[in-house]
Amino acid sequence: MKIVVLKFGGTSVGTISRISNVANIIAKFRKKKYKVIVLSSAMSGVTNDLISKSKKISKVFSDSEYDVLVSSGEQISCSLIAGKLIDKGFKSRSWMAWQIPILTEGKHKFSRIVDIYKKEILKYLNSGGIPIIAGFQGINQQSRITTIGRGGTDASAIMFAKFFNAEKCIIFTDVKGVYTTDPNKLKSARKIKVISYEEMLEMASLGAKVMQPHSIQDARLNRKDIEVRSSFINKPGTLITKRKNIINNKIITGVTSTQNDAKVTLVGVKDRPGIAASIFRPLSENSINVDMVVQNISANGKETDLTFTIKLDDLNKTKKIINENKNINFKKFLFDKNVSKVSIIGVGMITTPGVTFRMFQSLAKQKINIQVISTSEIKISVLINKKNIKKAIFALHKEFKLDK
Amino acid sequence: MKIVVLKFGGTSVGTISRISNVANIIAKFRKKKYKVIVLSSAMSGVTNDLISKSKKISKVFSDSEYDVLVSSGEQISCSLIAGKLIDKGFKSRSWMAWQIPILTEGKHKFSRIVDIYKKEILKYLNSGGIPIIAGFQGINQQSRITTIGRGGTDASAIMFAKFFNAEKCIIFTDVKGVYTTDPNKLKSARKIKVISYEEMLEMASLGAKVMQPHSIQDARLNRKDIEVRSSFINKPGTLITKRKNIINNKIITGVTSTQNDAKVTLVGVKDRPGIAASIFRPLSENSINVDMVVQNISANGKETDLTFTIKLDDLNKTKKIINENKNINFKKFLFDKNVSKVSIIGVGMITTPGVTFRMFQSLAKQKINIQVISTSEIKISVLINKKNIKKAIFALHKEFKLDK
Repeated sequence: MKIVVLKFGGTSVGTISRISNVANIIAKFRKKKYKVIVLSSAMSGVTNDLISKSKKISKVFSDSEYDVLVSSGEQISCSLIAGKLIDKGFKSRSWMAWQIPILTEGKHKFSRIVDIYKKEILKYLNSGGIPIIAGFQGINQQSRITTIGRGGTDASAIMFAKFFNAEKCIIFTDVKGVYTTDPNKLKSARKIKVISYEEMLEMASLGAKVMQPHSIQDARLNRKDIEVRSSFINKPGTLITKRKNIINNKIITGVTSTQNDAKVTLVGVKDRPGIAASIFRPLSENSINVDMVVQNISANGKETDLTFTIKLDDLNKTKKIINENKNINFKKFLFDKNVSKVSIIGVGMITTPGVTFRMFQSLAKQKINIQVISTSEIKISVLINKKNIKKAIFALHKEFKLDK
Repeated sequence: MKIVVLKFGGTSVGTISRISNVANIIAKFRKKKYKVIVLSSAMSGVTNDLISKSKKISKVFSDSEYDVLVSSGEQISCSLIAGKLIDKGFKSRSWMAWQIPILTEGKHKFSRIVDIYKKEILKYLNSGGIPIIAGFQGINQQSRITTIGRGGTDASAIMFAKFFNAEKCIIFTDVKGVYTTDPNKLKSARKIKVISYEEMLEMASLGAKVMQPHSIQDARLNRKDIEVRSSFINKPGTLITKRKNIINNKIITGVTSTQNDAKVTLVGVKDRPGIAASIFRPLSENSINVDMVVQNISANGKETDLTFTIKLDDLNKTKKIINENKNINFKKFLFDKNVSKVSIIGVGMITTPGVTFRMFQSLAKQKINIQVISTSEIKISVLINKKNIKKAIFALHKEFKLDK
C-alpha cells in the first residue's frame, strides 16, 4: 500500500463544515487503499488573531513564545479533523510535533525541519490509522516549540512526503491550481496541467501566490511530485514535477506580475570599481533584497546613474541607509513607487530563439515603456509602469498563446 | 528563597490588558524574592468556544481529541503571560505539560495528576526564571494530552504547591474571596478571613462556586494553605487552612444555597428490607448522585413513601431508569423542580448545642416549610421551596450573626 501526503491550508479548514468536507476527502483516499498522512494548517483567521494578540502584548514579543502561541492554531484544527474522522468510523488521531517528534534547527519563527522520527507514525499507518499532523511546527533540541517560517505547512507536507517516501503529495487549497496568469487580472487565464519545479519556483517568486518558493525548492531537491488542487471542487489541479516528465509544447508556461516593488535611482554616482558593492553591501547587511539592477554607461567616465529595485516596504529603510552611508557619493536619490515587474516564465525559451524579441515587440505595440530588464535561463522580467500591468499581461498572454 | 505558586483563572487572563495586570502581580511577588511558579487557565471564553466547536463536529466527539482541543487554550494564555514578563525584563517562559512533564492517570477528560518531574523547573527557578505553566492538563503514559476534569487549574496549582513544597498557593480569581453567603443574594454578606478545609469543602459542595471541591480536598490532604483573592483588587482574600490554625469565635462560618436540585418521591413503595438499595443501585450505576434521602414511616407496615434529591439535570434519566426497572414496585412517581437546599456550615457546631434548633426556629418564624433534612458533623442542610431562598438566607445569616 502506497503512502499519500495530503495537506490542507487554512481556508480549507476554515469552518466546521469545511472541516467535515476535508474529512470526506481524506476518507476517499483512505478507501482507495492509500496509507494517508494528513498535514493541516490552522483554521483561517486563527493565526492572524494570535499574532495580533502578541502585538498587543508587546511590540517586541519574544520569538520563542511567539512560536508557542501561534502553533496552538494547528492543535485546534488537527484535533477537530481527527475527531470528525473518528465520528465517521475511521481510526484517526492528531499528532503534535513533540509527539512524533519533528526536529527542527535554526532560529525561532524561521526554523527548518531536519528530521522526522518515523517509527510511531509507521506503526500507526500499518494499523490502519490516519495520522493528522500539525503543520508549520516542530521542536528543537531543547524541546522548545518552533515554527518554520518558510513555506509553513506546505514545507511540512513536503518533508513528510520525503521522509515517508510518499508516492504523492497533494496540496489542497482554495484555488483550483496554478494558472497561466492571475485569473483576477485576466479572464482568459487557464489552469496549467503540469509545470516543472523550476518554472513553478520562478512563478512563485515572481508573484504567483499558490505556493511559497521555499517549499517548491524543497520538493525539487527531494524529487517529490506535488499536486496543487482545490478542497472545494473535486477536479484535477496542477502537477508540479521534474522537467523530464513534461511534454510541453508551449514556449512560455505563465505570466506573472508584482505590485510591491519600488525603483530607486542614484544619480551621479562616482564611476569607480567596487562602487556597486559599496552601495549594496550595507543594504544586504540590513536584510534588504536588491532585485533588478541596471547601471547606465557613464558618458564622461567619471559619473554614472545606478538604478535598482527593492520591495516597496524597504524603501524608507533603504533611503536612510544610503543617505547615512558616507562611503556612497551621489548627487540625487530618486524613487518610483509606481512600478511593476512583469515576467514570462517557461523552460521552452531555452531552446526557442526570439522569445525576448517577441516579448519586447508585444509590449512596444502597446506603447509600454520598459524601464529595467532582467533575465534568467527560464524567465524574462521587465519593469514597467504600474498602470500598464493589465495591458502587458493581456498582450503577453496572447502573444505566447497561453489562452489556447 | 521560598516558593510561591500563583494560579490565575480564566477571567483574570480574559483580555490583553488583564494579562498585563497579571504580569504586574507576578512581578511583585518575584521582586519580594519569592521563587514564583505560575499556573494559568485559558482566557475566559476560549475553552467554551473550543467545546462548542467539538459539539458541532460530532455529538460524540472523541475524548482523547477533546483533550487535545481544549488544552490549546492554556498554550495561548501561558505564552502571552510569559511574553509580557519577558517584555518587562524578567526571565520567563511558558511550559506545556509535555515539556515538564506532568504525568496523569485515568480516563481522558477526567485524568488525575500523579507525578510532576521537578528537575527542569527547579533548575529554571534557581536561575531566576519564572515558569508559566499550562494548567488543567497533563500527559499520560502514552504521551497523549490529557485534561484533569476535577478542579481544573486549581488542582494543577495545588499539585505544584505539593510537589515543590511551596510556602503558599494563591488562587487569583474574579471574586475577592470566600463570603459568608452569596453576595449576589444578600448584601450584608461578608468576606471570610480564614476558613478550614473541611468548612470550605462543604461550602463548595453546597453551592459556593469559588473553588471546586476536589481541589480543596487535594489541598487538605497535602496540607497546603490556599489563599483565594481577586486579581483585580489588591486586597487580602480568604485563607483556607488547617482547623487548628483558626481561632474562630463564630459557630457558623457560612450559609449556602443550591438552585439545581430536584426532589423525587416514590409513593407506595413496598416496605421490605433492601428496597432502598434496589432503587439506588441502578441510579448509582448510571452515575446519578442521590443526595438527601428520607423514608416515611409506613402506617400499615407494607408500604412506604421514599423521597430523595438529585441534580435537576438527572431528572429525566432518573425517571426513565426507575420506570424501566421491574424490580422496583411503587404506585406513583412524583417530582418537584422548585426546591433549593439551604445549608449552614461551621466547625463551631460540633461543640455548640442547639444549632439545629436555632436553624429550624429561624425558618419557622419566616413560615418556611422544611421538606427534607440532612446533617453532617459540620453542616446542616434543609430542602425548602425555591421561592424562599432569599428569605431563608437572610434569616440564617442574621440568626448566626454572620453580618457582624
